[in-house]
Amino acid sequence: MILVDGQPASMIDVADRGLAYGDGLFETMRIERGTILRWRKHLERLVHGCQRLQISLDTQLLQSEAEDFAMRHVSGVVKLIITRGSGARGYAFSRQHPSRRILQYSQLPVWPQRNFVQGVHLFVCQTRLALQPLLAGLKHLNRLEQVLARAEWQDEHYAEGLMLDADGNVTDGVFSNLFFVRDGVLYTPLLDRAGVAGVMRASIIELAPQLGMQVQQRRITLDELSGMDEAFCCNSLYGIWPVLSVGQINWSAGPISFRLQQKIAQQDS
Amino acid sequence: MILVDGQPASMIDVADRGLAYGDGLFETMRIERGTILRWRKHLERLVHGCQRLQISLDTQLLQSEAEDFAMRHVSGVVKLIITRGSGARGYAFSRQHPSRRILQYSQLPVWPQRNFVQGVHLFVCQTRLALQPLLAGLKHLNRLEQVLARAEWQDEHYAEGLMLDADGNVTDGVFSNLFFVRDGVLYTPLLDRAGVAGVMRASIIELAPQLGMQVQQRRITLDELSGMDEAFCCNSLYGIWPVLSVGQINWSAGPISFRLQQKIAQQDS
Repeated sequence: MILVDGQPASMIDVADRGLAYGDGLFETMRIERGTILRWRKHLERLVHGCQRLQISLDTQLLQSEAEDFAMRHVSGVVKLIITRGSGARGYAFSRQHPSRRILQYSQLPVWPQRNFVQGVHLFVCQTRLALQPLLAGLKHLNRLEQVLARAEWQDEHYAEGLMLDADGNVTDGVFSNLFFVRDGVLYTPLLDRAGVAGVMRASIIELAPQLGMQVQQRRITLDELSGMDEAFCCNSLYGIWPVLSVGQINWSAGPISFRLQQKIAQQDS
Repeated sequence: MILVDGQPASMIDVADRGLAYGDGLFETMRIERGTILRWRKHLERLVHGCQRLQISLDTQLLQSEAEDFAMRHVSGVVKLIITRGSGARGYAFSRQHPSRRILQYSQLPVWPQRNFVQGVHLFVCQTRLALQPLLAGLKHLNRLEQVLARAEWQDEHYAEGLMLDADGNVTDGVFSNLFFVRDGVLYTPLLDRAGVAGVMRASIIELAPQLGMQVQQRRITLDELSGMDEAFCCNSLYGIWPVLSVGQINWSAGPISFRLQQKIAQQDS
């Protein structure tokens, strides 16, 4: 089930700038009981991204459309793409150019239960994230780095890959954000030069004080990870997975991961 | 007039990975008298790009399709997009996945004659190109940096913008490559960390020895430009424009630009 600009469709205009230049943004969101989980946060990030890319967006129209769309499903995934719409050849655009809205439904993937209760191993990707402060944090449609990184491993031992930026700082997963715990403080990479600032990451940053935990966003090197007590990854679809290993560094699935899983589950119920 | 996978069409599948992730490549080529100018070079670059991105490509099929497409037009522009095709949600792909071919015709833009005979002024863009050796040189579909850079100026005084990489090296134009002349040597930025290695650039590098000129590809800073005798920009559609200014640095339209314009015109006739 797909809506393009509010109409059922399975195709879009070949001249769409999303195809031509990756000129747009997306959100991948979870539907439960007919509502989009963390919808306000997803919408906020999207509005912020549209402002940074100077893409016009009718927020009210999108909001009612997405909420109606979600209501037709008990649970699953809705992927929302906003592009700058169709354009003539060439990079130039008009600021008043109407954007295009695409809503796509898919079933929730089935992840192994052990990912949640035992934890996952992360593959250390060779593909580095380029430093681009103008695009950092945004979930835009220029995702070739993630495509290349995801192609580096086929071994199902690894549920996710860890990506470093060009300077060697731990940045994020291919489709997740990362957190580490040391002496009761939560650390997560600063995403001002690369990476996607995920909505689940934002929720965890908000929740941490309720668990009596401080959160620090800062640069984290791969070497520093061996000094961490606990690690976990997160995204808006699966929630939280404890991390068991990154390369030669091993952890046990830790108490903070499980407490945050519970907190998130409470929010979602 | 548009062909998608060989069939007349104006739409593509919403699930195309070109839209989802900018997972593909393109070529913008000039048609004259029913043939694509520098077709062999465009095809070589595309094949090389597909290898680097692990996109499967039926080169023979593409070749006959593009040549047939060009034959139906006296002159104009053909934009060829190759994407990794339609895929399920998620970055992972299969190496055998059939790619998608899109051929789009448009009329040749009309540029002011003065661009060719007098020269053009370049706007110095604030948007810097991130350093990403894995994608450098490729004409891939992740072009948000160019979209942002092109949005920096509206003043028609500037025909093109000059882009620096993150380290401040002169890299390319928003839709052109750049050359500089000093003491009879041609200099053009090395494109191993950022930028698009254009087909007209490759032709000029090949032609230069016929004019008794050496070519050096190397890092060039903005400060170095004031020591250059002459400058020009190029692409596959307009050919060569002498450059009159970059910021505070001024040149006269120079003899090398005009001799290369003639050489290119001879090739194309």
